[in-house]
Amino acid sequence: MTEKPKLSIGLIGSGFMGKAHVFGFATAEKVFDLPMQIDLHTVADINDEAATRAAHEFGFRHATSDWRTMLANPEIDVIDITAPNALHKEMALEAIAAGKHVYCEKPLAPLAKDAAEMADAAEAAGIKTQVGFNYICNPMLTLAREMIAGGELGDIRGYRGLHAEDYMANADDPYTFRHDPAGGGALADLGSHSLATAEYLLGPIARVMGDCVTTISERPDGKGGRRAIEVDDIGRAFLRFENGASGSIEGNWIATGRKMQHDFEVYGSKGALCFSQERFNELHFYAADDAHGRRGFRRIEAAPDHAPYGNFCVAPGHQLGFNDLKAIEVAGYVRAIAGQGPEPFSFRKGLRIQHLVESIQRSSVSSSWINV
Amino acid sequence: MTEKPKLSIGLIGSGFMGKAHVFGFATAEKVFDLPMQIDLHTVADINDEAATRAAHEFGFRHATSDWRTMLANPEIDVIDITAPNALHKEMALEAIAAGKHVYCEKPLAPLAKDAAEMADAAEAAGIKTQVGFNYICNPMLTLAREMIAGGELGDIRGYRGLHAEDYMANADDPYTFRHDPAGGGALADLGSHSLATAEYLLGPIARVMGDCVTTISERPDGKGGRRAIEVDDIGRAFLRFENGASGSIEGNWIATGRKMQHDFEVYGSKGALCFSQERFNELHFYAADDAHGRRGFRRIEAAPDHAPYGNFCVAPGHQLGFNDLKAIEVAGYVRAIAGQGPEPFSFRKGLRIQHLVESIQRSSVSSSWINV
Amino acid sequence: MTEKPKLSIGLIGSGFMGKAHVFGFATAEKVFDLPMQIDLHTVADINDEAATRAAHEFGFRHATSDWRTMLANPEIDVIDITAPNALHKEMALEAIAAGKHVYCEKPLAPLAKDAAEMADAAEAAGIKTQVGFNYICNPMLTLAREMIAGGELGDIRGYRGLHAEDYMANADDPYTFRHDPAGGGALADLGSHSLATAEYLLGPIARVMGDCVTTISERPDGKGGRRAIEVDDIGRAFLRFENGASGSIEGNWIATGRKMQHDFEVYGSKGALCFSQERFNELHFYAADDAHGRRGFRRIEAAPDHAPYGNFCVAPGHQLGFNDLKAIEVAGYVRAIAGQGPEPFSFRKGLRIQHLVESIQRSSVSSSWINV
Amino acid sequence: MTEKPKLSIGLIGSGFMGKAHVFGFATAEKVFDLPMQIDLHTVADINDEAATRAAHEFGFRHATSDWRTMLANPEIDVIDITAPNALHKEMALEAIAAGKHVYCEKPLAPLAKDAAEMADAAEAAGIKTQVGFNYICNPMLTLAREMIAGGELGDIRGYRGLHAEDYMANADDPYTFRHDPAGGGALADLGSHSLATAEYLLGPIARVMGDCVTTISERPDGKGGRRAIEVDDIGRAFLRFENGASGSIEGNWIATGRKMQHDFEVYGSKGALCFSQERFNELHFYAADDAHGRRGFRRIEAAPDHAPYGNFCVAPGHQLGFNDLKAIEVAGYVRAIAGQGPEPFSFRKGLRIQHLVESIQRSSVSSSWINV
Repeated sequence: MTEKPKLSIGLIGSGFMGKAHVFGFATAEKVFDLPMQIDLHTVADINDEAATRAAHEFGFRHATSDWRTMLANPEIDVIDITAPNALHKEMALEAIAAGKHVYCEKPLAPLAKDAAEMADAAEAAGIKTQVGFNYICNPMLTLAREMIAGGELGDIRGYRGLHAEDYMANADDPYTFRHDPAGGGALADLGSHSLATAEYLLGPIARVMGDCVTTISERPDGKGGRRAIEVDDIGRAFLRFENGASGSIEGNWIATGRKMQHDFEVYGSKGALCFSQERFNELHFYAADDAHGRRGFRRIEAAPDHAPYGNFCVAPGHQLGFNDLKAIEVAGYVRAIAGQGPEPFSFRKGLRIQHLVESIQRSSVSSSWINV
Repeated sequence: MTEKPKLSIGLIGSGFMGKAHVFGFATAEKVFDLPMQIDLHTVADINDEAATRAAHEFGFRHATSDWRTMLANPEIDVIDITAPNALHKEMALEAIAAGKHVYCEKPLAPLAKDAAEMADAAEAAGIKTQVGFNYICNPMLTLAREMIAGGELGDIRGYRGLHAEDYMANADDPYTFRHDPAGGGALADLGSHSLATAEYLLGPIARVMGDCVTTISERPDGKGGRRAIEVDDIGRAFLRFENGASGSIEGNWIATGRKMQHDFEVYGSKGALCFSQERFNELHFYAADDAHGRRGFRRIEAAPDHAPYGNFCVAPGHQLGFNDLKAIEVAGYVRAIAGQGPEPFSFRKGLRIQHLVESIQRSSVSSSWINV
Repeated sequence: MTEKPKLSIGLIGSGFMGKAHVFGFATAEKVFDLPMQIDLHTVADINDEAATRAAHEFGFRHATSDWRTMLANPEIDVIDITAPNALHKEMALEAIAAGKHVYCEKPLAPLAKDAAEMADAAEAAGIKTQVGFNYICNPMLTLAREMIAGGELGDIRGYRGLHAEDYMANADDPYTFRHDPAGGGALADLGSHSLATAEYLLGPIARVMGDCVTTISERPDGKGGRRAIEVDDIGRAFLRFENGASGSIEGNWIATGRKMQHDFEVYGSKGALCFSQERFNELHFYAADDAHGRRGFRRIEAAPDHAPYGNFCVAPGHQLGFNDLKAIEVAGYVRAIAGQGPEPFSFRKGLRIQHLVESIQRSSVSSSWINV
Repeated sequence: MTEKPKLSIGLIGSGFMGKAHVFGFATAEKVFDLPMQIDLHTVADINDEAATRAAHEFGFRHATSDWRTMLANPEIDVIDITAPNALHKEMALEAIAAGKHVYCEKPLAPLAKDAAEMADAAEAAGIKTQVGFNYICNPMLTLAREMIAGGELGDIRGYRGLHAEDYMANADDPYTFRHDPAGGGALADLGSHSLATAEYLLGPIARVMGDCVTTISERPDGKGGRRAIEVDDIGRAFLRFENGASGSIEGNWIATGRKMQHDFEVYGSKGALCFSQERFNELHFYAADDAHGRRGFRRIEAAPDHAPYGNFCVAPGHQLGFNDLKAIEVAGYVRAIAGQGPEPFSFRKGLRIQHLVESIQRSSVSSSWINV
């Protein structure tokens, strides 16, 4: 057995998503026979102490309080950005300029025009990119996509997508960066996942009509005062797909009681699919050609039949967790870097999502259908 | 015990809904202590044979092939119309003119302007009216309405409603009266139920933005040819309620696999409700003030706590059926006729639904929000 | 059309089950084309006032405080017994002696030996009998039975049955007749339904091993004191069926939170079924020969495909209620009286259940398998 | 920050469970702040080629075809046994004799007497042991245990446990080591998990009554002939717990359609819990003191409130996977080795499960309750 080439990672940020990325790297390497060996090289955080602690906790060999030092280090192959959204553009552009591959958490950038610059720069530089839309890495979504593409549902007619949570439901919780008019709001934060899933399953959306609503009109500003909220708490859209189907999505971060309602239903002429991220190891399938009196939605449980589930568990019913989805995302990206496949969700695709989000926002203001 | 006054029914039509009405009358009388005694007097159908057979099967004392004879009969108190939609207006107006109370299946009339004429005539005549929006007669919906009105959910913020079935999913099924551009389409047929439920729960809708889509563009005309379809197979709307909440509904008759997806979710500042007609003896309730680590949607099962369930079953968990909902509708109407309560769903309310449907249809054409 | 012969009912008792029977009669007549016309002739209750009120409420033509007068009345064809269990035997034997058909709520009698006397007497007299095991009247159970009998599950191997509720869960609720050592207990009251369903689906049980447990060892006696409880709060059994399958059942009346957990799962060599009375308009079916990667339990919703659902609703998904099950029971019994079919659940079958219950109770005491 | 002491692992076996252990080690180290640094030192397999491949795939530094060489290596601290069950005893005893800590997949040994030898030897040697009963490492089971122990359900009265799968449902699948009369059968293989969960939640079982059934009486022997099967396909037991509750469990490997039905229901005087491994990030909780008309089973979703979920995901609703449960198991064991807590599931506990299994098997033969 020959030694695999090393792929050295420079991670920026060590919060929620930084941690999830590290789990993803660790698991991906164990679970998949990757073409490259992942090396957790350096982690950057806001100061030396935080960076050193993160390096220790996550298993990086080096720590730095200046992410730019990583760009200058020829040992590092990939810059992995899990810093605040507002910094994504600057970091990515510099990393691209330094010839690094760039892995960036969603959203690619708060604004589509910035995301476009990033995608253009990445393609011009010929480096490999990845944006973290992890829910589509679920084997049950891959199954759904294959069933749709393979004609098992017949002609696709109707779609309903949804991503609802409740982390902004408390009106007494203060203003955060997620409320920044530049890139903030439930549609951008959660609806973006719904849009990614919709296009993953059905292909391109052609037109959108938006309805973005600010429900909690002001919040504590964290300094004893109040601050007006401009971004949407609920963002809805009607959709037309290029394949002729129509549909709708909703992003909602004030859905009291919902923690992960990333759901969809797809209706075709021959069958239907129904899915909820709340039970994401299941896909419900209705086949219109089942025998009379025996028809019904089947609860398909994730199993080795549904790649790459079998890499994680050799028996059915054992279930993947959220971090496993991240490992699947990582694996796809590493293969792309090794030239063994397409980028699973490139900056170009991340830009597409930003474009859809902004189109829906503009449509909501203008009350008009917008071609996308 | 004094004898109850008799309430004599003249039924027009003996199909699906005619039958459901008869079951409703029979059950209502056994289950409730109604202020009047229901008398199945006469049934009218298209010819003598059909009428006689219906009378025999349903237990009416008389049969007629001419519904107008019932109007002239002073013994008959209520004209119950389950004839095709296109005839509702003519029948109802004549019945009102004859001084009869009128019970009419939904839709009140294919067009709102006709429904308005009917509502005006009924009110001018002082007779009692009822339109058959039976799903709102469910004790679990009454519970939901009470919980919302009583503040258990806090401020209401978001709503999602839905009524999807699949009886038009087969593109080879022929054109029917339900495809008639005057009053036809999924929004009118099914979305109307969603609208009725939405206003039943949250109060008046203030504005709508519609999206009505014809997916199956032509169908067999039943004579060997093809006929273009103009009405919507899927009708969606964004909603604004007068209470400040926003929401959406969808009516869909090509949702392969769905038989009765009359569902809703309501999100408030303090809690949420989730319901599906597919399991209509349950209401799912999330209380944000449950203890940390113990929160979750509660599956409340229908029980004597939830009036009028207890009239049907003295123990919890036994469940009501669809025909029981019809009996609850009948009971409310009989009480209204006896002066013991408001009309549960009067012609005025039936008109309201038609108005909402048409507003959504117009909004879909004009791509503009319409005040309703 | 010829006039149908009349079938006159004399009902004893007007409580929970008396009411359910009346609803059953009323609905059965509307819903089914019965061979006889049901006539609610006389209701008997403990005194004139109660009887008269019941007659008025339920629509009987006559009332009596002496049930024996009904036996002497040649107009009455059927004696319907919903009086306390302890009276079933005396009433039934006298009714049989008077040549009446007898419809008796479950249990047929507290003790099997009494039930045997009743079954023998009924058969000797040639009258038609019915015991009220209503849960098996569900079209979804009929479907399950047909699927099993038709080989859709292959060889039947394993069975789990259950009937759990919580109406005895409160230890402060007083001693009632249901705690009477003669015929009382959760196994007799609820487990009996599980046994009826088990044999309805799989055919005869051959052997049982019991485990009957008294959990709440004493209760208020209603007079300020305490009374020891001897009957089981939970009654379990291992089962062997004549078809070679093994299984288990449980009856439990202290299952806090459960209102109607009458559930079963059947596993065969080619498929499986899963059912809960909590959602009794559904049957879940797994077909082992579905395509790889597409297998899963299908949620079959009750529909006109599943007779006699179509008598109640002509469209799928509308759902039956508990009282509808009672109507199906009534219809089967009326047809049997008219000579148009077998008795759905005769006294002989009611005796069988009592025999099973007592065998399990004895087995629990002796810790030995008992052939049944 | 001081360097953590190293904990070097010597793994025997690289199949299904070997892989799961490696995933567990990798994830545990990333997710938890363990007191020791895990070092994947050597993997042993049946020949050099297999061992080398496993080392490469799993990230071990060394490989060997002779597991005994690992015992002699002073660098190795823990021997992790995922070899066939029949070898567990020999390997464990030698490892213990060599002073190693021993981590052994379940079952500890096919026979309780062998397991007892192993537990005795481990305790005498003072080394730390762990048996892989991973399902109890679920935060939702920890929550259930805490709720029960904390009195949230009141007095515990009834229990139903279950572990059903279908990997032996095909009668044409050949005889395997799992059919070996010494230690084989569904009760030992799957029912053992039910027993572990039962005691984890409710404390010690006091008495058992068994029912072990061989349903598929012979299988292909893999050499063209047939071989009789002696072990159970379904193993059931009635249970008495020391806390006074009664219950039942079932292990079943021919439950067509079931992939991971590791379920339980617990009923107490004040509440109830309901769980299914099919949706193992949920726990359903009924609180009898919820308000009238608002009671129902709550679907509690796994969240940071439920330690150690928060180590994996900082937001609720994201869900753990099967391999995460293994990581929790590993973490507990590493802490025990570091002297920071008790052994989560020691050989003594593993012996306990074997003892329960054999007691149920003997009880099934003798048809008598056995004290355990």
